[in-house]
Amino acid sequence: MNNSLPSWNDTGPKAAILNFIQAVSDPGNANFVPPSERIATFDNDGTLWLEKPLYIQLQHGIYAIAKMAVEKPEVRARQPFKAVFEKDMAWLGQVAADFTKGDLHGVMTLLSGYTEAFDGIPVEAFEADALAFLNNAQDARFKKPYKLLTYQPMLELVHTLQESGFQVYITSGGGRDFMRAVVEEIYNIPRAMTIGSSIMFQYSEDAQGVAHVLRTKELEQPIDDGPGKPLHIHRAIGRRPVMAAGNSDGDIHMLKYATGHRGLTLGLLVHHDDAEREYAYDEGAEKALQLASRSGWVVVSMKDDWKEVFPA
Amino acid sequence: MNNSLPSWNDTGPKAAILNFIQAVSDPGNANFVPPSERIATFDNDGTLWLEKPLYIQLQHGIYAIAKMAVEKPEVRARQPFKAVFEKDMAWLGQVAADFTKGDLHGVMTLLSGYTEAFDGIPVEAFEADALAFLNNAQDARFKKPYKLLTYQPMLELVHTLQESGFQVYITSGGGRDFMRAVVEEIYNIPRAMTIGSSIMFQYSEDAQGVAHVLRTKELEQPIDDGPGKPLHIHRAIGRRPVMAAGNSDGDIHMLKYATGHRGLTLGLLVHHDDAEREYAYDEGAEKALQLASRSGWVVVSMKDDWKEVFPA
Repeated sequence: MNNSLPSWNDTGPKAAILNFIQAVSDPGNANFVPPSERIATFDNDGTLWLEKPLYIQLQHGIYAIAKMAVEKPEVRARQPFKAVFEKDMAWLGQVAADFTKGDLHGVMTLLSGYTEAFDGIPVEAFEADALAFLNNAQDARFKKPYKLLTYQPMLELVHTLQESGFQVYITSGGGRDFMRAVVEEIYNIPRAMTIGSSIMFQYSEDAQGVAHVLRTKELEQPIDDGPGKPLHIHRAIGRRPVMAAGNSDGDIHMLKYATGHRGLTLGLLVHHDDAEREYAYDEGAEKALQLASRSGWVVVSMKDDWKEVFPA
Repeated sequence: MNNSLPSWNDTGPKAAILNFIQAVSDPGNANFVPPSERIATFDNDGTLWLEKPLYIQLQHGIYAIAKMAVEKPEVRARQPFKAVFEKDMAWLGQVAADFTKGDLHGVMTLLSGYTEAFDGIPVEAFEADALAFLNNAQDARFKKPYKLLTYQPMLELVHTLQESGFQVYITSGGGRDFMRAVVEEIYNIPRAMTIGSSIMFQYSEDAQGVAHVLRTKELEQPIDDGPGKPLHIHRAIGRRPVMAAGNSDGDIHMLKYATGHRGLTLGLLVHHDDAEREYAYDEGAEKALQLASRSGWVVVSMKDDWKEVFPA
């Protein structure tokens, strides 16, 4: 197992991770955890893949809003279709600036346009659209399809855990069904082990009497973020994880839930401090970083602890 | 595989089941389904275990209501605590009679007392209570703990599917967290693969700062029954099953969803027609039985197709 995290530097976090895995996987160790309870939950945006300058799914949202504005001129009279259609960078910049300050109003307007764009369509059609976007749309800075902007060290961690008998789940504040389009390909995590936020669904039968699950534009509550994460984890898994990894304040409750498990646990916080290879930002992670030291969570410095950031 | 369903008679359903499993599991067969998509969903009450004279979970509800009425005299002034505390068989009999006729009013009153009895407690405490009940409380007619009143032929079917690479899920109209107390022990189905109805949850931290998931008394919508079943299946699994098994009208939408999968599928309907060894009733299954023949679903006669009903 000592060679199982090749993209990690030989610093404290790598040792802490390997010691933890070793202890809970060894039947002779006092901290042994049986495989059925050896559960790890990973946040997605900013933990497993890029989340700047905008959440990747929000880029898909803008793409879908633009497409709808082209196809249905009548929606251009209102936001967010108007701003996206007119490429109103002042309006979009304001949304981003407000979001950074914790004001979600603009993002919710974008989200409402996004869910409206797929209202009433079968879940398979949404997934096909998400897959095409993730395969083809490129990030402006890194000039690569979004699905390739995963963090290589975190991929290695997921696979090392899986090889050590862990059940690795994604618990994304973002949309579960968006991620499911690629999780098996990019993470080797089954779609059934992908938890996240969602819209509500509706049952329908087509003219041939075939049953379908259709999307609605209504958000399911609670979303899978902050205090919602442990609730989603309980609903989907039914067990408290022994390990959790996140990168922002939205992951605090999940980290507390996992590290509240009896016996040895591991809480991991990815710290974005590498402006050169990725981004450097503490915004939205201030409380988590503060809590980490007194909670014993391992803070991973992208700059110091990772040899590589993205897959070669 | 020909010896894998020993409690099934050599009648049509056994042959249909084995032919289906053989076809979708054989890479050389035109109907081959890769393991990641080889998904089967099973209803629980009346399909995997006994549901008469009352749903087993409703017995747990009455038990919990009685306990609360003993501990908190003030609740005895109102229903359902009053009737349960006073052992008012007229009131309880009316609930059962109304339910048979499709009037859910009384059952909803019982359910509200049941959810109230566990309002605000950690999910682990509810599960411990459910487990103690399922281990100890006995069915009046069969004189056995409820958890032993599973259907032996259906257990064999679940295990045969699992051995053939199927991912077998439970999708219960009843409470998911109630079933999770015993699914691993009695079915060999992981709790994460147990889908069902639920109450909503709340995040909380105790005096030591440890995070907990608490129950509320509010029902999650939609419940996992009727048109809600395919929605719950999509949410939890993210793929359309190729096989589904049920026994009542509440399973129709799930059966349509699974048999709407492209290629070979299997819809199974357990018909309770064995008053001697179990019960004979079509109530609540009339539409499903009617649909079965024109939909190609396999109807399993408990009387004719099963050698044994319960485990020895």
